[in-house]
Amino acid sequence: MDNRKIGVFDSGLGGLTAVKEIMNLFPNESIVYFGDTGRVPYGTRSKETIVKYTHDDINFLLSQDVKMIIIACGTASSAALPDIKGEYGVPIYGVVDAGAYEASRVTKNNKIGIIGTTATIKSGAYEKYIAEYNPDAQTFKKACPLFVPLVENGHFDTPVTKLVIEEYLKDIREAGVDTLILGCTHYPLLKKAIAEYMGDSVKLVSPGEEVAKFLRKKITPENAHSEVCDEDRYSYFVSDSVESFEELGSIFLETKINGKVNKIDIEKY
Amino acid sequence: MDNRKIGVFDSGLGGLTAVKEIMNLFPNESIVYFGDTGRVPYGTRSKETIVKYTHDDINFLLSQDVKMIIIACGTASSAALPDIKGEYGVPIYGVVDAGAYEASRVTKNNKIGIIGTTATIKSGAYEKYIAEYNPDAQTFKKACPLFVPLVENGHFDTPVTKLVIEEYLKDIREAGVDTLILGCTHYPLLKKAIAEYMGDSVKLVSPGEEVAKFLRKKITPENAHSEVCDEDRYSYFVSDSVESFEELGSIFLETKINGKVNKIDIEKY
Repeated sequence: MDNRKIGVFDSGLGGLTAVKEIMNLFPNESIVYFGDTGRVPYGTRSKETIVKYTHDDINFLLSQDVKMIIIACGTASSAALPDIKGEYGVPIYGVVDAGAYEASRVTKNNKIGIIGTTATIKSGAYEKYIAEYNPDAQTFKKACPLFVPLVENGHFDTPVTKLVIEEYLKDIREAGVDTLILGCTHYPLLKKAIAEYMGDSVKLVSPGEEVAKFLRKKITPENAHSEVCDEDRYSYFVSDSVESFEELGSIFLETKINGKVNKIDIEKY
Repeated sequence: MDNRKIGVFDSGLGGLTAVKEIMNLFPNESIVYFGDTGRVPYGTRSKETIVKYTHDDINFLLSQDVKMIIIACGTASSAALPDIKGEYGVPIYGVVDAGAYEASRVTKNNKIGIIGTTATIKSGAYEKYIAEYNPDAQTFKKACPLFVPLVENGHFDTPVTKLVIEEYLKDIREAGVDTLILGCTHYPLLKKAIAEYMGDSVKLVSPGEEVAKFLRKKITPENAHSEVCDEDRYSYFVSDSVESFEELGSIFLETKINGKVNKIDIEKY
């Protein structure tokens, strides 16, 4: 039994998808979330900067007495996870690992599409993990840098979004993939429009949701939280405005988080 | 005579538009540029964070022996300039002031449109300066948060861009403005598509270009650089990857800047 918290971070808000799944699957666990809203987005930055930000984020979570850390950010887990996995005293898991595992498992024709931010696609991390889990799989990838701003501006299923989806996904559709990894936590919000373009036969994998299932193998009776629950077992930290995170985060989680969010200066970690 | 440098900063690359104009109009001046590429974009952040970043940027430029500072970032100059103008030992000018001045001067029907990032529009800074320069002017404004990502992904005049322009500019066009302020240094790259949508009779004002003309009134024989030019009179600093800035910056300035760009840790200022 280990009553310390599970730490989760993302460059912004998207990682709350993972938090919601973890809450559902492991209702006793305590969770501390950090959203780096003051430095978002990570996906357009250099690897060096992403690795530095990831170290800051991990150091902050370590200061919160966590027993494990989930990198819910597609970019940070792709660019930094392979290098830092063993560096800290607690286990660190990332959405990239969980998403690659699920895609490798569900593909039937061994053709897997991968979409993500520029940094995620450049890192090659998904291919690396897929090659481990399913050496027969062929991968087809594409950076989709306009998807995040489209989501953040409420363009979920508009004519603009449809045009951009066609531009980005044309080649992957033509390659005949039967599985597509939505390698950024924002992309599930475009799921309807992407599914419509890709067709019913293509399975869409959302790594933010998969990471919670992935934890089933990692949370054991030895390290699970006791069945007695803390009243305040969820806490949230951000590096920019608390108000806008409370507002949007409550929508993401489908439960009010007002008053539970605090601002920190992440540059101090 | 004052041989110290002119300091210019922007959240990223767009401020090089202003730098290019200053180089043209004041060929003897030395310029030091800072692009905060590690923390771009500013336009989606809270006012508090924008003001903090602006202070960091000014402090860095002060460390470079400057005689004046130009805030080439529409967001930083809108959100922070009115509050900090007198706080430092050197004069500080912003694109917002220059753009408002030019728009107030050229409008004939006193109907001025203002577009910019979410933070710029929220700040109300353009209206404030316009009210000073032309109390009869009526203003119509709209935040255009997708324009920056469109520009950064090379969507200058594509069908996607045209759809987004229509979405954002419809009301302003219908209001019958004869002048439109492109209140973000990225927007001039969409000039062709915006001009096509707004029609020939609407004058587009690019504050990044206007700020150099504005300096004509501020650079006097007393504070101008001597006619003897330093060989290395232009230097550039960024907070993320040097390589991508060298590449894109050379396109912006139409001259190679490779080898003249250095990376700094802006969080130390």
